[in-house]
Amino acid sequence: MAGNSFGELFRITTFGESHGEAIGVIIDGCPSNLIIDEQFIQAELDKRRPGQSKITTQRKESDEFRILSGAFEGKTTGTPLTLLIPNSDQRSKDYDHNKDIFRPSHADFTYEAKYGIRDHRGGGRSSARETAARVAAGAIAKLFLNQSGIEIFAHVSSVGTIDAPNIDHLQDIHELLHIRESNLVRCADPATAHQLTNYIDDIRKSGDTVGGKISCLIRNCPAGLGEPVFDKLHADLGKAMLSINAVHGFEYGSGFAGSEMKGSEHNDIFLPKTKNKGVTTLTNYSGGIQGGISNGMDITFRVAFKPVATIMQNQQTVNSAGKAAEIKGKGRHDPCVVPRAVAIVEAMAALVIADHLLRNKSVIL
Amino acid sequence: MAGNSFGELFRITTFGESHGEAIGVIIDGCPSNLIIDEQFIQAELDKRRPGQSKITTQRKESDEFRILSGAFEGKTTGTPLTLLIPNSDQRSKDYDHNKDIFRPSHADFTYEAKYGIRDHRGGGRSSARETAARVAAGAIAKLFLNQSGIEIFAHVSSVGTIDAPNIDHLQDIHELLHIRESNLVRCADPATAHQLTNYIDDIRKSGDTVGGKISCLIRNCPAGLGEPVFDKLHADLGKAMLSINAVHGFEYGSGFAGSEMKGSEHNDIFLPKTKNKGVTTLTNYSGGIQGGISNGMDITFRVAFKPVATIMQNQQTVNSAGKAAEIKGKGRHDPCVVPRAVAIVEAMAALVIADHLLRNKSVIL
Amino acid sequence: MAGNSFGELFRITTFGESHGEAIGVIIDGCPSNLIIDEQFIQAELDKRRPGQSKITTQRKESDEFRILSGAFEGKTTGTPLTLLIPNSDQRSKDYDHNKDIFRPSHADFTYEAKYGIRDHRGGGRSSARETAARVAAGAIAKLFLNQSGIEIFAHVSSVGTIDAPNIDHLQDIHELLHIRESNLVRCADPATAHQLTNYIDDIRKSGDTVGGKISCLIRNCPAGLGEPVFDKLHADLGKAMLSINAVHGFEYGSGFAGSEMKGSEHNDIFLPKTKNKGVTTLTNYSGGIQGGISNGMDITFRVAFKPVATIMQNQQTVNSAGKAAEIKGKGRHDPCVVPRAVAIVEAMAALVIADHLLRNKSVIL
Amino acid sequence: MAGNSFGELFRITTFGESHGEAIGVIIDGCPSNLIIDEQFIQAELDKRRPGQSKITTQRKESDEFRILSGAFEGKTTGTPLTLLIPNSDQRSKDYDHNKDIFRPSHADFTYEAKYGIRDHRGGGRSSARETAARVAAGAIAKLFLNQSGIEIFAHVSSVGTIDAPNIDHLQDIHELLHIRESNLVRCADPATAHQLTNYIDDIRKSGDTVGGKISCLIRNCPAGLGEPVFDKLHADLGKAMLSINAVHGFEYGSGFAGSEMKGSEHNDIFLPKTKNKGVTTLTNYSGGIQGGISNGMDITFRVAFKPVATIMQNQQTVNSAGKAAEIKGKGRHDPCVVPRAVAIVEAMAALVIADHLLRNKSVIL
Repeated sequence: MAGNSFGELFRITTFGESHGEAIGVIIDGCPSNLIIDEQFIQAELDKRRPGQSKITTQRKESDEFRILSGAFEGKTTGTPLTLLIPNSDQRSKDYDHNKDIFRPSHADFTYEAKYGIRDHRGGGRSSARETAARVAAGAIAKLFLNQSGIEIFAHVSSVGTIDAPNIDHLQDIHELLHIRESNLVRCADPATAHQLTNYIDDIRKSGDTVGGKISCLIRNCPAGLGEPVFDKLHADLGKAMLSINAVHGFEYGSGFAGSEMKGSEHNDIFLPKTKNKGVTTLTNYSGGIQGGISNGMDITFRVAFKPVATIMQNQQTVNSAGKAAEIKGKGRHDPCVVPRAVAIVEAMAALVIADHLLRNKSVIL
Repeated sequence: MAGNSFGELFRITTFGESHGEAIGVIIDGCPSNLIIDEQFIQAELDKRRPGQSKITTQRKESDEFRILSGAFEGKTTGTPLTLLIPNSDQRSKDYDHNKDIFRPSHADFTYEAKYGIRDHRGGGRSSARETAARVAAGAIAKLFLNQSGIEIFAHVSSVGTIDAPNIDHLQDIHELLHIRESNLVRCADPATAHQLTNYIDDIRKSGDTVGGKISCLIRNCPAGLGEPVFDKLHADLGKAMLSINAVHGFEYGSGFAGSEMKGSEHNDIFLPKTKNKGVTTLTNYSGGIQGGISNGMDITFRVAFKPVATIMQNQQTVNSAGKAAEIKGKGRHDPCVVPRAVAIVEAMAALVIADHLLRNKSVIL
Repeated sequence: MAGNSFGELFRITTFGESHGEAIGVIIDGCPSNLIIDEQFIQAELDKRRPGQSKITTQRKESDEFRILSGAFEGKTTGTPLTLLIPNSDQRSKDYDHNKDIFRPSHADFTYEAKYGIRDHRGGGRSSARETAARVAAGAIAKLFLNQSGIEIFAHVSSVGTIDAPNIDHLQDIHELLHIRESNLVRCADPATAHQLTNYIDDIRKSGDTVGGKISCLIRNCPAGLGEPVFDKLHADLGKAMLSINAVHGFEYGSGFAGSEMKGSEHNDIFLPKTKNKGVTTLTNYSGGIQGGISNGMDITFRVAFKPVATIMQNQQTVNSAGKAAEIKGKGRHDPCVVPRAVAIVEAMAALVIADHLLRNKSVIL
Repeated sequence: MAGNSFGELFRITTFGESHGEAIGVIIDGCPSNLIIDEQFIQAELDKRRPGQSKITTQRKESDEFRILSGAFEGKTTGTPLTLLIPNSDQRSKDYDHNKDIFRPSHADFTYEAKYGIRDHRGGGRSSARETAARVAAGAIAKLFLNQSGIEIFAHVSSVGTIDAPNIDHLQDIHELLHIRESNLVRCADPATAHQLTNYIDDIRKSGDTVGGKISCLIRNCPAGLGEPVFDKLHADLGKAMLSINAVHGFEYGSGFAGSEMKGSEHNDIFLPKTKNKGVTTLTNYSGGIQGGISNGMDITFRVAFKPVATIMQNQQTVNSAGKAAEIKGKGRHDPCVVPRAVAIVEAMAALVIADHLLRNKSVIL
């Protein structure tokens, strides 16, 4: 109710602030007897970890996790699975100058307005550091989805005004993953990746930041997931993505461009069953979801991130008393969040699909 | 859990199928002693009602509602408020030819895949007729929000590739409302409205359909609404909008365009308090929401609708057995949903804000 | 959240007041393709119906239901199943004298305190008439449980200080049901039934009322239902029973008497598997539930009902202004609720088990 | 959904196993700016702590907690408040002999049946050690309730067949508390306390265990708390109590004895307002709750605990293969849980009232 939980049956609750002792997550509802691959979880966390390259924040967090509860001899037991990620490199002093000042386009002002108190150190709970807990939980969800062969792949498809070509039609997710992890910006198109990396580095040098987009593909999702009416599969994916820090837009399938099309162009014609395959569609403007329920085709969506609000430039603002003040850019921040956010988008997508997989079990007699 | 409820404290559950006896909604959690303005509720329903003009479906539904429970002497009592809207013009026979066929880009295939059974008459539960129940509930939410002076205004901002100019800066919502209701397409810009009406009418004559966009503005929303992390105000607005039939995209504030901007351009500089006003911002790329919490500025978002899937043309498809089949366009349908969807967007926005207004009451000691 | 819904996956929401147009229930989450036996549902409602014998209220309600949504060709479709029970014999005028008076041990005072408004006619929402909606929903749950062979049997085990002998050890539920339905008081022991019927009739003649107890038995419930910690199976059964009007106590297995026993007496010794049976226990002080989870033995519990508050005698009380007033017994009321409440206890038990059956599906990989 | 959370607005989720690294609790929804009195929290934990006297288990756990998140400069911030209690004295080896055996009247068999895996060490998640997390959370709830003057007092009112006299009429909770904390058994009547202490000590020496009852009193609870129909205040209190390990029964107000009374005896006559007081009742058979909503009188209820299942005697049972086996009493256990459970009953009561206090805020316009 206070907004720190996500999912109904595969349900997570995250906790912790940027500069507290630790952040973490409870996963309640993960099926029992799932083998916990700790190396895989750490590898997922490492993709989101700060300090991983020259185009990310230089804050050093090892983001090593430990399991506090819910596991026994390497497997889940059906009880709450708690993963804890201690904070190590906190430099809270970097934030003393922000104590009484509202940083532009940050959550300082709104937290103060809502709660009448705020932990100003590093943004406290509003810091994107919270998303590390989501990535850890998402890794568990991925391990669960692996059992059903469901694969999730996201990559950076644009930064600023530079777009990568569409890769939805490519078949081999393992190859895409290999390309993506071979470049700093996490784009599945090598040429664009090179361009984007240089662009972000230039932005960083100028003390500025820039927005970008992430495209995501979910493959082998069975038909039937998603609840009609309010909990449509794309509505829950949309909420999941919009809940990630800095996200300002979500579209699936044909998305905003689809609103410019005619029905005769946009309809996805069904193709007859064949020996090896069930019913499929010729095109996929529906993005794998019809009437809010997966149809077995690839699920595709895109997420828009605004530029990071912390810039290394002086800005006019106000203080807690509502009087004019100046703020100086300071601290260690990302020039562009999308390279690190790829892991978060995948994690949230995995959590949504895992939840709906469990929910769907209950509808059949 | 089965997806027919929305909201936490101001919570609605809708029920009913397109061709059953009635559709309806229970509102559970509406504060007591609210005066129920039945004329206002009917006026809201009339904006979504089919058959209202030449550019909407000619299905005739009076969409008259009655209150089954929860009211006493014209006021809410705090018990579940049930609104019932009988179905009148059902022509279920129009759908007999669809019984064993999956209409392209409809929910026929996915409902069958999920439930192993479906009420094929008029799309059953997947029909947009369900949204009449949302509009009725949204009208109650608006009556509640009126008590706090919160105003919600949506209009058609584009159809196909034709865009209306931005009207977010205009001050007088009553004037905008007057303009919008003076044209069939529900656009707040008279010149564009004229153009869009003609365009939709041409599309209709050609037996085709077209998509469009709706822009929405929430004014006088106090700072502090929205729960951080997962239930960010814009995440709940996004889910609400994405749960509306045919919606393929949602963006708020700077939206997708914001992902192309630099931080130095995008940051909304805070302006000092004045005698008459609290802290405001110079620009509003944040769309009235920072860190998931309202900041007191106008909340702005846009919603993209795909073209209606039912076209008056023959299409290739498959039948329940997965074999090739042909479907002929038949029935009474909208060439473009956005004129009628304006009422739905406003209703869902009202439900989100009402819910968060109640939720926010609980955080302060 | 406002307390009108029950269950997580097999979830009901009831609505309606005693003297409104109708009461009803939405069942959201009932699996699809369940055959709806309308005669069975009506028969269940008839067991709770007023006016069924000389020892119940003489209010005449046919309690005929109709299905508003969620069914197609006699089966559930997976969409919200709405059952409506119109109110027919309302005599609201009988309650005019109560408009400004708080009836002792009724909910008049507390509803007024909570909401600042109340529908005083027949107790409005606080009337036990609401439980008819639960019985209708419980009948659907029973139809669902029948698929798994789960049987539920309740009967009146005491009225005032007269107790029936324990029948938990009896094997044939159909025979018990036959005996119970052969007497007005719904007790499975014929001799006690005779005694109780006469006793209640005497109480009725004296213008007084009396409390009683109902015992319930759930047979063939598989091991594994119930969630540990907060949603223990007996905790959810207890909440379900305590939510029934007039219930003041709940105990399962050994219950209150168990608190007087020693561990060496109370422990249920496990018996080895045999060819035909899994692990069982020698005794069943655990009432079929250990650690909050069913163990496959009979689930047994008892529910205590206070005497009906409306008596045909004059009583001192206060009016809305808090001043002294006198209230005269009037209207048509039950001298003892337990004969009609047997159907409600079974319905709520069925709803709890159906919900946990669905919930349990999600825990296994 | 998996049963590890409790409450709607003041919502807790507990985690951890008896022999893991730690147990803990997240409180989500606690209002911001509440001063966290750490000494008070520790004092509450100390009342439940093992090893506190000769009549409790000798397991040594210091039960020291630390705050992981949600606090800043000694106050709550509105973000998830996480309290962690490390396990220190685990002797897991004591349980090796139980690895493949199902202890009678424990949760070993049912956890295995449900999950197909279990952490056998000390009962894992089914251990009453989990309730320490509830006591920590309940202490926060009490600090919150203090703001409204609401007081909660529980004590041991019987052990085996020995009952203490009723103390509900006594006015001074501080005095009752003083008496209760002056004896090992936590009974508010000194003479009975002496008797009970000796009785439990005798039981302990005989290697046996015994059940008991706890009575609870909530004073100064405002009228209006509790949601009608399913979330009646006593239904939520009942569920809270029944969710505590070993509880087999719950009754409020007149309870089971009330089911033997007549309406003319049982009705609580309302007394007119006076200068200093609002409407009160002459008697309080309603236990402070009418129609599921508090009426401003003392809330009273009783909770029955079965005897502890672990006895220091040999017992017949079965092993994981379902074959006959013998189990020997071993480990450190309580001869009677009620002296330590007083703190748990108060904690759960505080959590229910805190939740309903927040929920009640939302119903008034």
